[in-house]
Amino acid sequence: MTALPEEAKALVESTALGHVVTLNADGAPHLTCVWIGWDDGDIVFASSTMTKKIRNLRRDPRVAISIESDRISQMGLKEYLWVRGSAEVTEGGGLGLLREFATRYLGPDTTFQPWADPRDGYQVRVKAERIGGLGPWIRAAR
Amino acid sequence: MTALPEEAKALVESTALGHVVTLNADGAPHLTCVWIGWDDGDIVFASSTMTKKIRNLRRDPRVAISIESDRISQMGLKEYLWVRGSAEVTEGGGLGLLREFATRYLGPDTTFQPWADPRDGYQVRVKAERIGGLGPWIRAAR
Repeated sequence: MTALPEEAKALVESTALGHVVTLNADGAPHLTCVWIGWDDGDIVFASSTMTKKIRNLRRDPRVAISIESDRISQMGLKEYLWVRGSAEVTEGGGLGLLREFATRYLGPDTTFQPWADPRDGYQVRVKAERIGGLGPWIRAAR
Repeated sequence: MTALPEEAKALVESTALGHVVTLNADGAPHLTCVWIGWDDGDIVFASSTMTKKIRNLRRDPRVAISIESDRISQMGLKEYLWVRGSAEVTEGGGLGLLREFATRYLGPDTTFQPWADPRDGYQVRVKAERIGGLGPWIRAAR
């Protein structure tokens, strides 16, 4: 487990979505896009209810996330980051995290009020094991 | 197998990257970003050399791709598409496809000249089995 380099923080805290991969019971990849946040070198995200990705992560914590930058690298290609690691799922606190994300993704005056289940959804913390992609976060990780 | 709805064509042919998931030998997800194209309702991409994703797809053709739009949906959330399906890998023709993509991703006057191995890389065709996300392609697929 390794904290992400600080160079990745601005990208994680942009309005780019996190493309999150979990594994279905048959081992096939399940892919969705979510709002993400930065917490002490980890990527965090939330779900307001029990979704397929939460079920998947509880059975198999292996996870991957990629984030696409709108910056163009010196090579002329778009910068992006991928993270592979292990997910820790916590029950509760999902709604609060989503509301916090909403002020960034939708704007500071947003009135985003998602419905959450009685357990107040779920928080997920991704502990990175490997990172890659194209951008300053890669040079920093080497 | 199902062709993607025409509503997805503009997104696939934008300058958004394809976030491609393949499966490593141990079943863990492998995630990279690639240039993608549209061919008759399939998503296609290329590699100029034998990369991990090509090796993975030859062993296990299960694949997922997500693409992030810069359009905001009526719900206020960013539109995106995910596709899950099966990949067909063809040897050769990788360089030609990459050059074609480069004129879109880097600009019509680009002089992108990637190195390719003697086999001229690989083309990958993704035959969709399920699609999801948020956007007009979902309403069309229902």
